[in-house]
Amino acid sequence: ADEHTPGAWLTRVRAERPLVHNITNLVVTNVAANALLAIGASPVMAYAHEEVADMARIARAVALNMGTLTPDVITAMRIAGKAANEAGVPVVFDPVGAGATPYRSQAAAQLTEALRLTVLRGNTGEIGVLLGAGGQVTGVDSSGAGNELPQAMKAYARARGTVVIATGAHDLVTDGESLWQLHNGHPLLGSITGSGCSLTAILGAFVGSVAHGSPLSTYASACVAAVTCFNVAGELAAASAQGPGTFQAALFDALYHLTEADVNDRARVERVSL
Amino acid sequence: ADEHTPGAWLTRVRAERPLVHNITNLVVTNVAANALLAIGASPVMAYAHEEVADMARIARAVALNMGTLTPDVITAMRIAGKAANEAGVPVVFDPVGAGATPYRSQAAAQLTEALRLTVLRGNTGEIGVLLGAGGQVTGVDSSGAGNELPQAMKAYARARGTVVIATGAHDLVTDGESLWQLHNGHPLLGSITGSGCSLTAILGAFVGSVAHGSPLSTYASACVAAVTCFNVAGELAAASAQGPGTFQAALFDALYHLTEADVNDRARVERVSL
Amino acid sequence: ADEHTPGAWLTRVRAERPLVHNITNLVVTNVAANALLAIGASPVMAYAHEEVADMARIARAVALNMGTLTPDVITAMRIAGKAANEAGVPVVFDPVGAGATPYRSQAAAQLTEALRLTVLRGNTGEIGVLLGAGGQVTGVDSSGAGNELPQAMKAYARARGTVVIATGAHDLVTDGESLWQLHNGHPLLGSITGSGCSLTAILGAFVGSVAHGSPLSTYASACVAAVTCFNVAGELAAASAQGPGTFQAALFDALYHLTEADVNDRARVERVSL
Repeated sequence: ADEHTPGAWLTRVRAERPLVHNITNLVVTNVAANALLAIGASPVMAYAHEEVADMARIARAVALNMGTLTPDVITAMRIAGKAANEAGVPVVFDPVGAGATPYRSQAAAQLTEALRLTVLRGNTGEIGVLLGAGGQVTGVDSSGAGNELPQAMKAYARARGTVVIATGAHDLVTDGESLWQLHNGHPLLGSITGSGCSLTAILGAFVGSVAHGSPLSTYASACVAAVTCFNVAGELAAASAQGPGTFQAALFDALYHLTEADVNDRARVERVSL
Repeated sequence: ADEHTPGAWLTRVRAERPLVHNITNLVVTNVAANALLAIGASPVMAYAHEEVADMARIARAVALNMGTLTPDVITAMRIAGKAANEAGVPVVFDPVGAGATPYRSQAAAQLTEALRLTVLRGNTGEIGVLLGAGGQVTGVDSSGAGNELPQAMKAYARARGTVVIATGAHDLVTDGESLWQLHNGHPLLGSITGSGCSLTAILGAFVGSVAHGSPLSTYASACVAAVTCFNVAGELAAASAQGPGTFQAALFDALYHLTEADVNDRARVERVSL
Repeated sequence: ADEHTPGAWLTRVRAERPLVHNITNLVVTNVAANALLAIGASPVMAYAHEEVADMARIARAVALNMGTLTPDVITAMRIAGKAANEAGVPVVFDPVGAGATPYRSQAAAQLTEALRLTVLRGNTGEIGVLLGAGGQVTGVDSSGAGNELPQAMKAYARARGTVVIATGAHDLVTDGESLWQLHNGHPLLGSITGSGCSLTAILGAFVGSVAHGSPLSTYASACVAAVTCFNVAGELAAASAQGPGTFQAALFDALYHLTEADVNDRARVERVSL
């Protein structure tokens, strides 16, 4: 069996139960922690400048999410991110709302500059703004970037050694060499808050399960798996939900019960050439 | 059809999908965001002093909630509120726990003094304390204010040009000219945390859908609609709930599926004279 | 009827509806508030240094939880705890993640030193680390302390006049004289975030219902009841859950509907000798 199928990555995450250190926003702390538990990882949230470096070093991944940014949180992210970089712990960064205010755009630019990121994930508008490829961000909603987004993502990924992910109607993942379009998911994922933030946390679990020293293409494979697993869980949850409230509960149930076969059977992963 | 029926306002909110900037408390951030998404609005939470003015200016309404107040949050509320006032963006204020500690009472008094509010909403005890019309607040529970509450609300509304709302066994809304008693709702709304705070956020969505320059009576009509929609959703949710946990999920489902007809059929809005 | 059965304590909590002042973590604020409401208590969350003493004095119990500690939160805990100590309001302390980083271990040591605690509750690893009885804490997961844990707990409880609780596969409670092993619960409680933190909040409700001036053994009895009620609710919730998401909702429902008979029929409380 191919150890790089999306389902195989899920099995690996469950076996390793990676500790993911989250510095995330006030809206989704509970949801992100539950998503990590449900997929089989171990979440920890820590924000104090006094401890984030220690926590980052013992974690298998650090997930940074800009959702309710303050100067204190930026400092915590920088300390944790630098400690993770020094210790070889992968860092996932989610520039929530980049483009909505100058403050967020600047913070996103500074953090992407200061830290070596293994994964940069946002919605298409945020990634478009951050990479100078167009896109509109209003509050935390965004609308599609221009046609040049995939090329801009590939160029950034190659230049920085970062897997870049833009999520939207379909999802784009690139490591600078390959580009994948992912077609799983369900509209109800857009009707609850924190689904993107939960995905960011889950990306931490998947890249936290990659063996140290692996090439970037292996991290990209883990990212394709994380997005696919999350979106397949969304599809399964939608089947038993009556609306966004019951969908949220069903999503945790689906993440918890998701099997390797579920994921591989339903995965709609397309490798595209530019 | 009357464009000012509660159901017609719901349809308008869905069509406009107003961005509501929330500065709210740590207990309900997730719930308030999901309530706004479920009703068809667009939530954003932002707290940094560096960005709240920018966010308030691009929002259609600003909702300020005192639930877990700190000096930093008060400052954020003042900056956001002043920016909203200057830009003509309506401000909704929820003085959670006013009367429970001197700190909260003073903060509520200072913020209502410093800002021009479109809507002031609290439970009867909080509004009673704030308007000097009696009432008891213990923690965040409150017991009824005296008989003079409706008159005090009307006087305050007229003097300040603010729609005043006191929620309780029944709900009172006034713009200083008219006074409405609203009779929808369900006891399970009192068994979950954050139902009042969710209503405050939803009030933001409704007043954010009012055309600029409308008279206060139009904002009052939107507020009557917001309270009624929320409480009708509570009634519908209760029918399929087994307790407060399943009720919370069912409430988001009900807000999401609520129709103009549901609301208008079930609305129990009474205009009273004093 | 014995007024000290677990079920009788539940009835007492419902009758008294104690106000519990929580200074807790960002992950679980909503969950802890809902757990308190569901069991029949009244939650309040307050963090500002300017008001925590006032809030602590009017509360029936103060519950302090170290989950997402920062220096500001430590100060708030110290102020609230001291005010509670002076006013005779019981304090429950949950040293979340003690042992995971030096910062958390030091904070836990300082707070247990500075405050007179009525209840100290953690998982076995945290309590083991704090009492120097072994144990491993990684993030917020912990693995069992050594065989000496019960003796260390008893010695600490006797020396400090504190009920000590270590939760795990089974739960240990001691007041320094007696030691109880509690055998209720369900594995799904470990698959959602915040179940330990919710229990800490609920311990506040139960010790908040103890008459002032009661001996420590009475507080221990209330604690045995709190743990048992929470775990029995977990058992009942699991029967109707499809996974962790629906379990969380079902847990609030079960806490809300829990009866004195449910608890006493299912209670598996064992008094052990050392």
